[in-house]
Amino acid sequence: MPNKRCVEWQFSGSDAAEEAAAASLGTYSSAVFALCDPLGKPILPPRSDSPETSHTAEKAVVKAVICGTGNAYAPSIGLPVARSAVAEYLNRDLHKKLTGDDVFMTVGCKQAIELVVDILAKPKANILLPKPGFPADYARSIYKHVEVRRYDFIPEKDFEIDLDSVREMADENTFAIFIINPHNPIGNYYTEAHLKQLAILARELGIMVVSDEVYQWTVFGSNHFVPMGKFSSIVPVITLGSISKGWSVPGWRTGWLALHDLDGAFTSTKVLKAAKEFLEINSKPATVIQAAIPTILEKTPKEFFDRRQNFLKNKVDFAYSKLKDIPTLICYMKPVACTFLWTELDPLQFFDIKDDQDFCNKLAKEENLVLLPGIAFGQKNWLRHSIDMDIPTLEDAFTRLKSFCERHVIINQRLTHDVNDVN
Amino acid sequence: MPNKRCVEWQFSGSDAAEEAAAASLGTYSSAVFALCDPLGKPILPPRSDSPETSHTAEKAVVKAVICGTGNAYAPSIGLPVARSAVAEYLNRDLHKKLTGDDVFMTVGCKQAIELVVDILAKPKANILLPKPGFPADYARSIYKHVEVRRYDFIPEKDFEIDLDSVREMADENTFAIFIINPHNPIGNYYTEAHLKQLAILARELGIMVVSDEVYQWTVFGSNHFVPMGKFSSIVPVITLGSISKGWSVPGWRTGWLALHDLDGAFTSTKVLKAAKEFLEINSKPATVIQAAIPTILEKTPKEFFDRRQNFLKNKVDFAYSKLKDIPTLICYMKPVACTFLWTELDPLQFFDIKDDQDFCNKLAKEENLVLLPGIAFGQKNWLRHSIDMDIPTLEDAFTRLKSFCERHVIINQRLTHDVNDVN
Repeated sequence: MPNKRCVEWQFSGSDAAEEAAAASLGTYSSAVFALCDPLGKPILPPRSDSPETSHTAEKAVVKAVICGTGNAYAPSIGLPVARSAVAEYLNRDLHKKLTGDDVFMTVGCKQAIELVVDILAKPKANILLPKPGFPADYARSIYKHVEVRRYDFIPEKDFEIDLDSVREMADENTFAIFIINPHNPIGNYYTEAHLKQLAILARELGIMVVSDEVYQWTVFGSNHFVPMGKFSSIVPVITLGSISKGWSVPGWRTGWLALHDLDGAFTSTKVLKAAKEFLEINSKPATVIQAAIPTILEKTPKEFFDRRQNFLKNKVDFAYSKLKDIPTLICYMKPVACTFLWTELDPLQFFDIKDDQDFCNKLAKEENLVLLPGIAFGQKNWLRHSIDMDIPTLEDAFTRLKSFCERHVIINQRLTHDVNDVN
Repeated sequence: MPNKRCVEWQFSGSDAAEEAAAASLGTYSSAVFALCDPLGKPILPPRSDSPETSHTAEKAVVKAVICGTGNAYAPSIGLPVARSAVAEYLNRDLHKKLTGDDVFMTVGCKQAIELVVDILAKPKANILLPKPGFPADYARSIYKHVEVRRYDFIPEKDFEIDLDSVREMADENTFAIFIINPHNPIGNYYTEAHLKQLAILARELGIMVVSDEVYQWTVFGSNHFVPMGKFSSIVPVITLGSISKGWSVPGWRTGWLALHDLDGAFTSTKVLKAAKEFLEINSKPATVIQAAIPTILEKTPKEFFDRRQNFLKNKVDFAYSKLKDIPTLICYMKPVACTFLWTELDPLQFFDIKDDQDFCNKLAKEENLVLLPGIAFGQKNWLRHSIDMDIPTLEDAFTRLKSFCERHVIINQRLTHDVNDVN
């Protein structure tokens, strides 16, 4: 029989992921949701909710399940039919065509982000990330000890990338600039001319462009979406994507990483080799979803996306108009893409709000309403509002937000700002 | 316009995954398959093939797809209903019950393995792995710079773990012993008495037991399968599992990691905290499969597993009998679980076979038949044969293998061994 005295165990949990985990969107989001009262009014936005996906996508997965075409292991770099289908799909907008060999399947766009950081990380290296940007890029950089430098946007130019700031912060240890296009959380997307300028600058700096285009199906502005891959004759580009946002199925966890090579740069720099090696030792997306990817990409009717884009435009219009009644939160640009509003908060206008995190915490506690603090996206004292709800729910959310702000605002400041009324 | 001269790119691919990727099962397996001639006779075993899964499992996933219950993000530690269902399922064999809080969902059993190594890795640490063992354990240890020490089995005692070898190789930097039960590739599983001895020894050594039980549904011996978790009142245990092998759906990429705590050891050693942090920054299994887990685990009829176990027993009997005609390959134990034969190769009996890798390479080239070399599992000059095929295919495989061996054997050695005829 084992003795009953206390054992001194030789194992212990590693703290290697501690800082990165603290920086993840999930951590921020869970912390704020945890402050809501499950017995109070409905928690907004409704968690674990996802808009209906396309029947084409559902049927494609059902077929793969029933026919057993996705039950076996897939190669670590992805199922050949899925890789080819992604290449074909992206080629619709490209002069320099991709083949299936240039595409690797990933566990959502998030793993694609993680892989790029893993593949390129080296001692002393630094990476240029947007401010604001997506937490996963930052969290992975922390985990891999890559220095993060945040470039700015120009609000006066529809939040274009501040290329001067990019040029200033890049040095001989910079290996890539990450862009998010369409941009979450700002909700804009870049013109062809701007992307070309970026490509030329990146070439000059000797760095690659990594373009997260997961929101490309959620544009409702008047311009056509232009993918960064279009400029891969100027600079090597890695495009990241997934079906998560376009088809409203983040829970299907299937994305990709597409390598738009330039004169064999990905081979000579061993990026291609590293990509395959990291994929070999990492998790793979479900084969059963990969098997459905060709049908999902080729057969989903345009009407599905039109409907979704109209829905989002409608919600953005509504939410933006509601901000007029909340002069303490400033939205500089009405979004033309994605599913958020991005507003600036001035804590000095409130008598008991210290910063964006404090705002979100108190809002969750008092109103069961969840906004995410700007610091999660690398920009303090901003707020991300989800607008992906039906109108009555959105109206409820903005009523609660207005009421919260009115309770906390310093009285004589209530009428100062009118910026949301412009535009 | 960009200039046309050669650019000196500042990025390069990391070699951090190179050695680990080379040690992965996928790398070994792809290398051997690549030597087969796609225009020759059918390549065996048929790749990307998986036996039919249970209709219950198919229907559960179809329902989740159609109802949209798995379209949204799941928490990083897993969908609560899936975690609870796994706990309930494992509890059938346990006195000390688990709750959903003790279970974390993973991208197949492989990610569960990777997470355990990541969570426990620290400088100078070492881990005890079986010889032979599963490549993913070893590959992840390489990647995380954990020293691997391989413990032995005792062939005379039905390949029980050589506990004396475990005791000898453990030191103050050892943090865990990994066991595979049922064991791939040997094909045995451990008695209750043996597992208890192991638990007592591990406690004495101050290390935890990590038990990969992914093959628990493929036992066809006369003993009942006993999970390691049964001894978590002696030593802390982490159980790894998935639906991959039991339901023949590795492509669904859904597994778990169950923490059988002892007196709060996982909390005091921060293992629980580290597990949550690593899950936060790592890939997640598809929510749409997680949503189906309760039905899959609770409702799959016993007949499905009986049928599968009978199928495997039948194939093992057939394959083992066929080995009688191939005296140069020695199988010391007729498997009572899993889907393989594990045979010893004596290269000295062949005039042009250097070792197990050379054997597998030449066999693939000459016969379009794939066996995996023992070095992939940490044991040189052994071979892993898949037996998971129908009888005509298996007969074809063994005819090819016999013919290959007869072509390469040194003539006067052809009749020396008769060990396969015993048992």
